[in-house]
Amino acid sequence: MLKLYDFLPSGNGYKVRLLLTQLGIPFERVEINILKGESRTPEFLKKNSNGRIPVLQLESGDFLAESNAILFYFSEDTEFLPADKLLRARVLQWLFFEQYSHEPNIATPRFWITELGKADEYREAIEQKRQAGYAALGVMEQHLTQQKFFVGDRYSIADIGLFAYTHVADEGGFDLSQFPAIQAWIERVKAQPNYIPITQQQF
Amino acid sequence: MLKLYDFLPSGNGYKVRLLLTQLGIPFERVEINILKGESRTPEFLKKNSNGRIPVLQLESGDFLAESNAILFYFSEDTEFLPADKLLRARVLQWLFFEQYSHEPNIATPRFWITELGKADEYREAIEQKRQAGYAALGVMEQHLTQQKFFVGDRYSIADIGLFAYTHVADEGGFDLSQFPAIQAWIERVKAQPNYIPITQQQF
Repeated sequence: MLKLYDFLPSGNGYKVRLLLTQLGIPFERVEINILKGESRTPEFLKKNSNGRIPVLQLESGDFLAESNAILFYFSEDTEFLPADKLLRARVLQWLFFEQYSHEPNIATPRFWITELGKADEYREAIEQKRQAGYAALGVMEQHLTQQKFFVGDRYSIADIGLFAYTHVADEGGFDLSQFPAIQAWIERVKAQPNYIPITQQQF
Repeated sequence: MLKLYDFLPSGNGYKVRLLLTQLGIPFERVEINILKGESRTPEFLKKNSNGRIPVLQLESGDFLAESNAILFYFSEDTEFLPADKLLRARVLQWLFFEQYSHEPNIATPRFWITELGKADEYREAIEQKRQAGYAALGVMEQHLTQQKFFVGDRYSIADIGLFAYTHVADEGGFDLSQFPAIQAWIERVKAQPNYIPITQQQF
Protein backbone atom coordinates (compact mmCIF):
# COMPACT_ATOMS: atom_id res chain seq x y z
CA MET A 1 0.00 0.00 0.00
CA LEU A 2 1.08 3.59 -0.59
CA LYS A 3 2.69 5.17 2.44
CA LEU A 4 2.33 8.92 2.99
CA TYR A 5 4.84 10.58 5.31
CA ASP A 6 2.78 13.48 6.47
CA PHE A 7 2.07 16.04 9.20
CA LEU A 8 -1.64 16.43 9.88
CA PRO A 9 -1.84 20.26 10.06
CA SER A 10 0.17 20.60 6.81
CA GLY A 11 -1.68 21.98 3.80
CA ASN A 12 0.96 20.43 1.55
CA GLY A 13 0.23 17.02 3.08
CA TYR A 14 -3.50 17.69 2.86
CA LYS A 15 -3.29 18.23 -0.92
CA VAL A 16 -2.13 14.62 -1.32
CA ARG A 17 -4.63 13.23 1.23
CA LEU A 18 -7.49 15.03 -0.53
CA LEU A 19 -6.57 13.89 -4.06
CA LEU A 20 -5.92 10.26 -3.08
CA THR A 21 -9.23 10.17 -1.19
CA GLN A 22 -11.12 11.67 -4.12
CA LEU A 23 -9.47 9.15 -6.44
CA GLY A 24 -10.42 6.30 -4.09
CA ILE A 25 -6.77 5.23 -3.72
CA PRO A 26 -6.05 3.81 -0.23
CA PHE A 27 -2.90 4.87 1.59
CA GLU A 28 -1.27 4.51 4.99
CA ARG A 29 -0.43 7.75 6.75
CA VAL A 30 2.78 7.98 8.79
CA GLU A 31 2.78 11.02 11.06
CA ILE A 32 6.07 12.95 11.03
CA ASN A 33 6.02 15.63 13.71
CA ILE A 34 7.99 18.41 12.06
CA LEU A 35 7.77 20.47 15.26
CA LYS A 36 9.92 17.81 16.94
CA GLY A 37 12.48 17.69 14.09
CA GLU A 38 11.24 14.35 12.80
CA SER A 39 11.62 15.48 9.16
CA ARG A 40 15.33 16.20 9.72
CA THR A 41 16.49 12.85 11.15
CA PRO A 42 19.09 10.83 9.19
CA GLU A 43 16.40 8.22 8.55
CA PHE A 44 13.94 10.72 7.11
CA LEU A 45 16.60 12.48 5.01
CA LYS A 46 17.10 9.17 3.17
CA LYS A 47 13.48 9.52 2.01
CA ASN A 48 13.76 13.21 1.11
CA SER A 49 17.16 14.87 1.33
CA ASN A 50 15.37 18.24 1.44
CA GLY A 51 13.90 17.30 4.84
CA ARG A 52 10.28 18.17 4.13
CA ILE A 53 6.92 16.42 4.18
CA PRO A 54 4.90 15.19 2.37
CA VAL A 55 6.85 12.27 0.95
CA LEU A 56 5.02 9.45 -0.75
CA GLN A 57 6.44 5.94 -0.83
CA LEU A 58 5.16 4.06 -3.85
CA GLU A 59 4.50 0.33 -3.93
CA SER A 60 7.84 -0.03 -5.76
CA GLY A 61 9.60 1.45 -2.73
CA ASP A 62 10.48 4.67 -4.59
CA PHE A 63 9.99 7.94 -2.75
CA LEU A 64 8.41 10.99 -4.35
CA ALA A 65 8.58 14.42 -2.70
CA GLU A 66 7.03 17.87 -3.36
CA SER A 67 3.27 17.96 -2.89
CA ASN A 68 2.48 19.38 -6.32
CA ALA A 69 4.66 16.81 -8.11
CA ILE A 70 2.79 14.07 -6.22
CA LEU A 71 -0.54 15.63 -7.29
CA PHE A 72 0.61 15.58 -10.92
CA TYR A 73 1.78 11.98 -10.70
CA PHE A 74 -1.56 10.65 -9.45
CA SER A 75 -3.84 12.88 -11.51
CA GLU A 76 -2.45 12.08 -14.96
CA ASP A 77 -5.09 10.33 -17.06
CA THR A 78 -7.81 11.11 -14.53
CA GLU A 79 -10.55 13.75 -14.43
CA PHE A 80 -8.36 15.80 -12.05
CA LEU A 81 -5.90 16.82 -14.80
CA PRO A 82 -6.96 17.99 -18.27
CA ALA A 83 -5.69 15.95 -21.23
CA ASP A 84 -5.14 19.06 -23.37
CA LYS A 85 -1.47 20.09 -23.48
CA LEU A 86 -1.99 23.83 -22.92
CA LEU A 87 -4.50 23.27 -20.13
CA ARG A 88 -2.06 20.87 -18.45
CA ALA A 89 0.66 23.54 -18.62
CA ARG A 90 -1.87 26.02 -17.24
CA VAL A 91 -2.47 23.70 -14.25
CA LEU A 92 1.30 23.68 -13.67
CA GLN A 93 1.37 27.48 -14.01
CA TRP A 94 -1.06 27.77 -11.09
CA LEU A 95 0.79 25.12 -9.06
CA PHE A 96 4.10 26.99 -9.49
CA PHE A 97 2.29 30.22 -8.60
CA GLU A 98 1.11 28.44 -5.47
CA GLN A 99 4.60 27.37 -4.38
CA TYR A 100 6.32 30.66 -5.24
CA SER A 101 3.84 33.49 -4.68
CA HIS A 102 1.19 31.98 -2.40
CA GLU A 103 2.45 29.30 0.00
CA PRO A 104 5.54 31.15 1.37
CA ASN A 105 3.40 34.19 2.17
CA ILE A 106 0.16 32.55 3.37
CA ALA A 107 1.18 29.16 4.80
CA THR A 108 4.26 30.41 6.63
CA PRO A 109 2.42 32.98 8.81
CA ARG A 110 -0.15 30.27 9.59
CA PHE A 111 2.70 28.01 10.72
CA TRP A 112 4.17 30.70 12.96
CA ILE A 113 0.81 31.82 14.43
CA THR A 114 -1.23 28.62 14.64
CA GLU A 115 1.27 25.73 14.68
CA LEU A 116 4.08 27.32 16.70
CA GLY A 117 1.80 29.72 18.61
CA LYS A 118 4.47 32.43 18.33
CA ALA A 119 2.61 35.34 16.76
CA ASP A 120 4.48 37.84 18.95
CA GLU A 121 7.94 36.47 18.30
CA TYR A 122 7.36 36.46 14.52
CA ARG A 123 5.41 39.73 14.37
CA GLU A 124 7.87 41.51 12.06
CA ALA A 125 8.30 38.54 9.72
CA ILE A 126 4.51 38.12 9.56
CA GLU A 127 4.12 41.77 8.62
CA GLN A 128 6.72 41.36 5.85
CA LYS A 129 4.65 38.56 4.31
CA ARG A 130 1.27 40.26 4.64
CA GLN A 131 1.39 42.40 1.49
CA ALA A 132 2.67 39.62 -0.79
CA GLY A 133 0.08 37.22 0.65
CA TYR A 134 -2.76 39.63 -0.08
CA ALA A 135 -1.32 40.22 -3.57
CA ALA A 136 -1.49 36.46 -4.26
CA LEU A 137 -5.08 36.36 -3.01
CA GLY A 138 -5.81 39.33 -5.29
CA VAL A 139 -4.53 37.41 -8.31
CA MET A 140 -6.77 34.47 -7.37
CA GLU A 141 -9.80 36.71 -6.77
CA GLN A 142 -9.43 38.36 -10.16
CA HIS A 143 -9.24 34.97 -11.90
CA LEU A 144 -12.17 33.49 -9.98
CA THR A 145 -14.38 36.46 -10.82
CA GLN A 146 -14.39 35.10 -14.37
CA GLN A 147 -14.01 31.35 -13.81
CA LYS A 148 -15.61 28.77 -11.56
CA PHE A 149 -12.38 26.79 -11.17
CA PHE A 150 -8.76 27.61 -11.99
CA VAL A 151 -8.32 25.76 -15.28
CA GLY A 152 -10.76 24.79 -18.02
CA ASP A 153 -13.78 25.65 -15.85
CA ARG A 154 -13.62 22.35 -13.98
CA TYR A 155 -12.18 21.11 -10.71
CA SER A 156 -8.55 19.94 -11.06
CA ILE A 157 -5.35 19.59 -9.05
CA ALA A 158 -4.83 23.35 -9.63
CA ASP A 159 -7.81 23.87 -7.31
CA ILE A 160 -6.58 21.28 -4.81
CA GLY A 161 -3.14 22.91 -4.73
CA LEU A 162 -4.50 26.40 -4.13
CA PHE A 163 -7.35 25.38 -1.83
CA ALA A 164 -5.07 23.73 0.75
CA TYR A 165 -3.70 26.90 2.33
CA THR A 166 -6.32 29.39 1.06
CA HIS A 167 -9.24 27.90 2.96
CA VAL A 168 -7.29 28.18 6.24
CA ALA A 169 -5.69 31.54 5.43
CA ASP A 170 -7.49 33.04 8.45
CA GLU A 171 -5.23 30.90 10.65
CA GLY A 172 -2.35 32.98 9.24
CA GLY A 173 -4.13 36.25 9.96
CA PHE A 174 -5.60 36.83 6.49
CA ASP A 175 -9.13 38.20 6.18
CA LEU A 176 -10.97 36.59 3.27
CA SER A 177 -14.12 38.71 3.66
CA GLN A 178 -12.83 41.10 0.98
CA PHE A 179 -12.52 38.21 -1.52
CA PRO A 180 -16.07 37.08 -2.39
CA ALA A 181 -15.05 35.10 -5.49
CA ILE A 182 -12.51 33.12 -3.43
CA GLN A 183 -15.13 32.46 -0.77
CA ALA A 184 -17.60 31.14 -3.36
CA TRP A 185 -14.86 28.95 -4.90
CA ILE A 186 -14.01 27.53 -1.46
CA GLU A 187 -17.63 26.43 -1.14
CA ARG A 188 -17.53 24.87 -4.62
CA VAL A 189 -14.40 22.89 -3.67
CA LYS A 190 -15.98 21.75 -0.40
CA ALA A 191 -18.99 20.50 -2.38
CA GLN A 192 -16.88 18.15 -4.54
CA PRO A 193 -17.51 14.38 -4.19
CA ASN A 194 -15.45 12.70 -1.48
CA TYR A 195 -14.20 15.99 -0.04
CA ILE A 196 -12.44 15.61 3.31
CA PRO A 197 -11.45 18.40 5.71
CA ILE A 198 -7.78 19.14 6.41
CA THR A 199 -7.82 17.60 9.88
CA GLN A 200 -9.45 14.32 8.96
CA GLN A 201 -6.95 11.61 9.81
CA GLN A 202 -7.89 8.47 7.96
CA PHE A 203 -9.04 7.39 4.57
CA MET B 1 6.17 33.45 -34.08
CA LEU B 2 6.38 32.82 -30.35
CA LYS B 3 6.87 36.00 -28.31
CA LEU B 4 8.82 35.83 -25.05
CA TYR B 5 8.30 38.69 -22.60
CA ASP B 6 11.60 38.56 -20.80
CA PHE B 7 14.28 40.43 -18.83
CA LEU B 8 17.79 39.58 -19.99
CA PRO B 9 19.49 39.12 -16.58
CA SER B 10 16.63 36.88 -15.37
CA GLY B 11 17.48 33.23 -14.77
CA ASN B 12 13.78 32.42 -15.06
CA GLY B 13 13.70 34.00 -18.51
CA TYR B 14 16.98 32.27 -19.41
CA LYS B 15 15.47 28.82 -18.72
CA VAL B 16 12.96 29.40 -21.53
CA ARG B 17 15.55 30.97 -23.88
CA LEU B 18 17.89 28.01 -23.35
CA LEU B 19 15.27 25.31 -23.91
CA LEU B 20 13.74 26.96 -27.00
CA THR B 21 17.22 27.44 -28.47
CA GLN B 22 18.16 23.82 -27.78
CA LEU B 23 14.89 22.69 -29.34
CA GLY B 24 15.54 24.88 -32.41
CA ILE B 25 12.25 26.76 -31.92
CA PRO B 26 12.52 30.41 -33.02
CA PHE B 27 11.05 33.13 -30.84
CA GLU B 28 10.94 36.90 -30.60
CA ARG B 29 12.19 38.39 -27.35
CA VAL B 30 10.43 41.44 -25.90
CA GLU B 31 12.51 43.10 -23.20
CA ILE B 32 10.50 44.05 -20.10
CA ASN B 33 12.66 46.10 -17.74
CA ILE B 34 11.40 44.95 -14.36
CA LEU B 35 13.67 47.52 -12.66
CA LYS B 36 11.54 50.24 -14.27
CA GLY B 37 8.24 48.64 -13.25
CA GLU B 38 7.45 47.44 -16.77
CA SER B 39 6.10 44.10 -15.46
CA ARG B 40 3.51 45.91 -13.33
CA THR B 41 1.87 48.14 -15.97
CA PRO B 42 -1.86 47.61 -16.70
CA GLU B 43 -0.89 46.37 -20.16
CA PHE B 44 1.54 43.77 -18.83
CA LEU B 45 -0.85 42.63 -16.09
CA LYS B 46 -3.28 41.59 -18.85
CA LYS B 47 -0.59 39.12 -19.97
CA ASN B 48 0.21 37.87 -16.45
CA SER B 49 -1.90 39.14 -13.58
CA ASN B 50 0.90 38.09 -11.20
CA GLY B 51 3.16 40.77 -12.76
CA ARG B 52 6.21 38.61 -13.42
CA ILE B 53 8.36 37.64 -16.36
CA PRO B 54 8.83 35.38 -18.27
CA VAL B 55 5.52 35.22 -20.10
CA LEU B 56 5.28 33.37 -23.37
CA GLN B 57 2.73 34.33 -26.00
CA LEU B 58 1.84 31.33 -28.14
CA GLU B 59 0.94 31.54 -31.83
CA SER B 60 -2.71 31.18 -30.75
CA GLY B 61 -2.40 34.43 -28.79
CA ASP B 62 -2.64 32.61 -25.44
CA PHE B 63 -0.24 33.65 -22.68
CA LEU B 64 1.59 31.16 -20.49
CA ALA B 65 3.44 32.25 -17.33
CA GLU B 66 5.76 30.57 -14.77
CA SER B 67 9.11 29.56 -16.25
CA ASN B 68 8.92 25.93 -15.17
CA ALA B 69 5.40 25.48 -16.59
CA ILE B 70 6.68 26.88 -19.89
CA LEU B 71 9.60 24.41 -19.79
CA PHE B 72 7.16 21.55 -19.26
CA TYR B 73 4.90 22.69 -22.10
CA PHE B 74 7.68 22.75 -24.68
CA SER B 75 9.59 19.68 -23.52
CA GLU B 76 6.72 17.19 -23.56
CA ASP B 77 7.37 14.48 -26.18
CA THR B 78 10.99 15.66 -26.64
CA GLU B 79 14.32 14.34 -25.34
CA PHE B 80 14.24 17.07 -22.65
CA LEU B 81 11.47 15.35 -20.65
CA PRO B 82 11.37 11.60 -19.90
CA ALA B 83 8.36 9.68 -21.16
CA ASP B 84 8.20 7.48 -18.04
CA LYS B 85 5.52 8.64 -15.61
CA LEU B 86 7.60 8.42 -12.42
CA LEU B 87 10.61 10.10 -14.04
CA ARG B 88 8.36 12.90 -15.28
CA ALA B 89 7.04 13.40 -11.74
CA ARG B 90 10.65 13.37 -10.53
CA VAL B 91 11.46 16.20 -12.99
CA LEU B 92 8.56 18.15 -11.51
CA GLN B 93 9.82 17.34 -7.98
CA TRP B 94 13.13 19.06 -8.79
CA LEU B 95 11.40 21.98 -10.52
CA PHE B 96 9.18 22.58 -7.46
CA PHE B 97 12.28 22.25 -5.27
CA GLU B 98 13.86 24.92 -7.48
CA GLN B 99 10.99 27.39 -7.07
CA TYR B 100 10.45 26.82 -3.34
CA SER B 101 13.82 25.97 -1.77
CA HIS B 102 16.37 27.27 -4.28
CA GLU B 103 15.28 30.31 -6.30
CA PRO B 104 13.97 32.47 -3.41
CA ASN B 105 17.24 31.96 -1.50
CA ILE B 106 19.79 32.06 -4.35
CA ALA B 107 18.24 34.22 -7.08
CA THR B 108 16.90 36.89 -4.75
CA PRO B 109 20.29 37.82 -3.20
CA ARG B 110 21.71 37.94 -6.75
CA PHE B 111 18.93 40.37 -7.68
CA TRP B 112 19.66 42.62 -4.69
CA ILE B 113 23.46 42.51 -5.07
CA THR B 114 24.02 42.37 -8.83
CA GLU B 115 20.86 43.77 -10.46
CA LEU B 116 19.95 46.46 -7.94
CA GLY B 117 23.53 47.02 -6.71
CA LYS B 118 22.23 47.38 -3.15
CA ALA B 119 24.26 44.82 -1.18
CA ASP B 120 24.55 47.19 1.79
CA GLU B 121 20.88 48.11 1.95
CA TYR B 122 19.83 44.44 1.82
CA ARG B 123 22.64 43.09 4.03
CA GLU B 124 20.34 41.68 6.72
CA ALA B 125 17.89 40.11 4.24
CA ILE B 126 20.82 38.59 2.33
CA GLU B 127 22.16 37.05 5.53
CA GLN B 128 18.72 35.59 6.29
CA LYS B 129 18.75 33.79 2.94
CA ARG B 130 22.33 32.56 3.10
CA GLN B 131 21.76 29.42 5.20
CA ALA B 132 18.71 28.23 3.24
CA GLY B 133 20.54 28.88 -0.04
CA TYR B 134 23.52 26.79 1.03
CA ALA B 135 21.13 24.08 2.25
CA ALA B 136 19.56 23.91 -1.23
CA LEU B 137 23.01 23.70 -2.80
CA GLY B 138 23.84 20.92 -0.33
CA VAL B 139 20.80 18.91 -1.47
CA MET B 140 21.93 19.33 -5.08
CA GLU B 141 25.55 18.41 -4.28
CA GLN B 142 24.49 15.22 -2.53
CA HIS B 143 22.34 14.18 -5.49
CA LEU B 144 25.00 15.02 -8.09
CA THR B 145 27.61 13.00 -6.24
CA GLN B 146 25.66 9.94 -7.39
CA GLN B 147 24.15 11.13 -10.67
CA LYS B 148 25.39 12.95 -13.75
CA PHE B 149 22.12 14.79 -14.26
CA PHE B 150 19.09 15.30 -12.03
CA VAL B 151 16.69 12.73 -13.45
CA GLY B 152 17.23 9.43 -15.23
CA ASP B 153 20.94 10.14 -15.74
CA ARG B 154 20.31 12.36 -18.76
CA TYR B 155 19.97 16.08 -19.39
CA SER B 156 16.37 17.30 -18.98
CA ILE B 157 14.40 20.42 -18.06
CA ALA B 158 15.17 19.57 -14.41
CA ASP B 159 18.78 20.48 -15.19
CA ILE B 160 17.79 23.58 -17.14
CA GLY B 161 15.56 24.73 -14.26
CA LEU B 162 18.28 24.28 -11.65
CA PHE B 163 21.19 25.45 -13.80
CA ALA B 164 19.71 28.91 -14.46
CA TYR B 165 20.43 30.42 -11.05
CA THR B 166 23.03 27.92 -9.79
CA HIS B 167 25.67 28.76 -12.38
CA VAL B 168 25.47 32.45 -11.45
CA ALA B 169 25.10 31.84 -7.70
CA ASP B 170 28.39 33.72 -7.14
CA GLU B 171 26.58 36.89 -8.26
CA GLY B 172 24.42 36.41 -5.15
CA GLY B 173 27.43 35.92 -2.91
CA PHE B 174 27.47 32.11 -2.88
CA ASP B 175 30.81 30.28 -3.03
CA LEU B 176 30.53 27.16 -5.17
CA SER B 177 34.12 26.01 -4.51
CA GLN B 178 32.87 23.72 -1.73
CA PHE B 179 30.50 21.95 -4.17
CA PRO B 180 32.67 19.97 -6.61
CA ALA B 181 29.82 17.81 -7.91
CA ILE B 182 27.78 20.92 -8.75
CA GLN B 183 30.79 22.45 -10.49
CA ALA B 184 31.29 19.33 -12.63
CA TRP B 185 27.56 19.28 -13.46
CA ILE B 186 27.69 22.94 -14.53
CA GLU B 187 30.42 22.01 -17.02
CA ARG B 188 28.32 19.08 -18.29
CA VAL B 189 25.36 21.41 -18.87
CA LYS B 190 27.56 23.96 -20.65
CA ALA B 191 28.79 21.17 -22.95
CA GLN B 192 25.27 20.35 -24.17
CA PRO B 193 24.49 20.94 -27.87
CA ASN B 194 23.23 24.46 -28.67
CA TYR B 195 24.04 25.78 -25.21
CA ILE B 196 23.77 29.58 -24.93
CA PRO B 197 24.98 31.75 -22.05
CA ILE B 198 22.51 33.70 -19.92
CA THR B 199 23.37 37.06 -21.45
CA GLN B 200 23.10 36.05 -25.10
CA GLN B 201 20.34 38.15 -26.57
CA GLN B 202 19.19 36.53 -29.74
CA PHE B 203 18.36 33.14 -31.09
